[in-house]
Amino acid sequence: MTAGSDHNHQAKQAVILSVDAMGGDQGPAAVIAGCNKSASKNPEIRFILHGPREELEPLVNRRKHLRERCEIRDAQGVVTMEDKPSHVVRHGKGTSMWSALDAVRNGEATVAVSCGNTGALMALSMIRLRKLPGVNRPAIAILWPSRNPQGFNVMLDVGADIRADEQDLLQYALMGTSYARNGMNLPRPRVGLLNVGTEEHKGRSELKEAYELISAQAGPAEFDFVGFVEGGDIPGDICDVIVTDGFTGNVAIKTGEGTASLIGDLLKEAFRYSPMSRIAALLALTSLRRLQKRIDPRTVNGGVFLGLNGTVVKSHGSADATGVSAAVKLAFQLAHSGFTDKLASRLAAATAPATPDPEAGGPDQREAGK
Amino acid sequence: MTAGSDHNHQAKQAVILSVDAMGGDQGPAAVIAGCNKSASKNPEIRFILHGPREELEPLVNRRKHLRERCEIRDAQGVVTMEDKPSHVVRHGKGTSMWSALDAVRNGEATVAVSCGNTGALMALSMIRLRKLPGVNRPAIAILWPSRNPQGFNVMLDVGADIRADEQDLLQYALMGTSYARNGMNLPRPRVGLLNVGTEEHKGRSELKEAYELISAQAGPAEFDFVGFVEGGDIPGDICDVIVTDGFTGNVAIKTGEGTASLIGDLLKEAFRYSPMSRIAALLALTSLRRLQKRIDPRTVNGGVFLGLNGTVVKSHGSADATGVSAAVKLAFQLAHSGFTDKLASRLAAATAPATPDPEAGGPDQREAGK
Repeated sequence: MTAGSDHNHQAKQAVILSVDAMGGDQGPAAVIAGCNKSASKNPEIRFILHGPREELEPLVNRRKHLRERCEIRDAQGVVTMEDKPSHVVRHGKGTSMWSALDAVRNGEATVAVSCGNTGALMALSMIRLRKLPGVNRPAIAILWPSRNPQGFNVMLDVGADIRADEQDLLQYALMGTSYARNGMNLPRPRVGLLNVGTEEHKGRSELKEAYELISAQAGPAEFDFVGFVEGGDIPGDICDVIVTDGFTGNVAIKTGEGTASLIGDLLKEAFRYSPMSRIAALLALTSLRRLQKRIDPRTVNGGVFLGLNGTVVKSHGSADATGVSAAVKLAFQLAHSGFTDKLASRLAAATAPATPDPEAGGPDQREAGK
Repeated sequence: MTAGSDHNHQAKQAVILSVDAMGGDQGPAAVIAGCNKSASKNPEIRFILHGPREELEPLVNRRKHLRERCEIRDAQGVVTMEDKPSHVVRHGKGTSMWSALDAVRNGEATVAVSCGNTGALMALSMIRLRKLPGVNRPAIAILWPSRNPQGFNVMLDVGADIRADEQDLLQYALMGTSYARNGMNLPRPRVGLLNVGTEEHKGRSELKEAYELISAQAGPAEFDFVGFVEGGDIPGDICDVIVTDGFTGNVAIKTGEGTASLIGDLLKEAFRYSPMSRIAALLALTSLRRLQKRIDPRTVNGGVFLGLNGTVVKSHGSADATGVSAAVKLAFQLAHSGFTDKLASRLAAATAPATPDPEAGGPDQREAGK
């Protein structure tokens, strides 16, 4: 890990990202095109690119923005979408994914980016980067189109783990607010805890307990807790961060994505229906493109793995240059803001009293509190 | 309950629906307008309408299709949206909701329709109609716009109970297929069990057990089991019935609804953006209306309570005449097909061997199997 001592100074220096060039559906050319796109817009970005040198070198050399700002680290192995996470953990040494994570592990970069196999990336991140002290379950956070001014809400966990107890949900709240603060520039994020809309919340006792824990941390951790929210609030504007377990979160986002995609297809169908509607589609092209851009998953490409010693941005496997560039932009912002270190100290502060006060029996509380 | 002995004969007779005229946001006028709409299209429908006679009588008398085919049953009390279910269970006697359910309890109708408070309606349905033998948790099933030829998939449970064990999930599969068969005319529904898209299904052991139970029942209960499905398959075309617990189901549909509503609003905004796009909107009006109709919740209005001695169709609280008419149409189809009785025998058959075979030790298995 790089020292987080002087971010103001650091901000003027280069920000180094560790990028796994392999494993995406569109191959290394799309990844390198995406990196080039980001590099051309942002003079501070530097890359360590991982993959077979003989494949990457010609692709990089064709890109003038990349050539000087990119180090290629040879890794001959590739993790495929079919590889089982357990297999990758045992035999993945020498792959570009392993190498990309190790550059973060060694402190050469604070954020890694990969388009590869999510399960393998999570499993490998866990063993190479290890969990932050006090974190039981790392989480995957995504951005979801919303009615909020920032255009997106943070939701976590969306599938790192299918279970979460009240302590995990509290940590998700802390990780999600830190992410919203550093990745989306929201100084005081509003957090909601996902539940169902019935009056009686019988069962699911962990939600009631998490409610109390998150309430208690809202003050010290400088966020607002809006309490229980429903599925309809994920794209809504009453909170910025939605906290849930990975099973519910995963089902919710996939239902939302599937429904959005169905509507998109029906819309296209509607515009093809008659000569009149075809003319209409032409006239509305600019407006429709703007709408598509707003809800295009490529422009918010990147699930972020939180709770590890280092941050990993998981880009969609099918990401093209635009998608990769969006993931790289997010990774840059997180690296630039010193997110990894800030998150670590935020989580450390939450497990200990904010201002240790020996007279108040702080250390004892600390023992008892966990 | 009416005898389900001769459905062919019954089909040519009147089908009586028990309708709670009160409790919706738009008042009894919208409910009666909806009933009238259905009555004008369908000569077989008869209604028992529940509510204050002095309010309902003038509204009914204005409607020529209703006057002759509608019995008003005076009930002065009204369950409001704010009433707690527990309060309604204790003090709800004399309300139109209670009266509507009692007409089903007494066998005057097999299906009840209400726009009222969902929690109260479920609680009251449980105590007035009681659970079917062998059913542990009744479920709420909804229709969700999908890529399937029938245009919709069935999903359950979407919030009757926040928990479901493997036996409950099996019953949901049986209830869902019976509903798809009788409510949507699908002779052999395909069932999917909702899960997350990771390879390792560690934890959530009830899902693995439900998988085995549902597999085993697919043959005797005449449905196809497609195995685990993901959130994206809820609006998809690989299955017709999606089985899940009420917590996950509730979050999923609300996320989907919220996302669809956000896209709709962004689309409207896009069409207002420039003079050109406003002209486009005018030209595309017919196509857009057709799209809206396809995904309009009003046209598939009605969650259905399954697993009770009688069927209850819950219409949206905000339903207008079109919405109420859609719920009435669904209630008619379910009543007409003898759904309540068919579901009861389907569930009874699943808990006993399909063809009792004394030599195979059937009765013993039956004891052990539950």
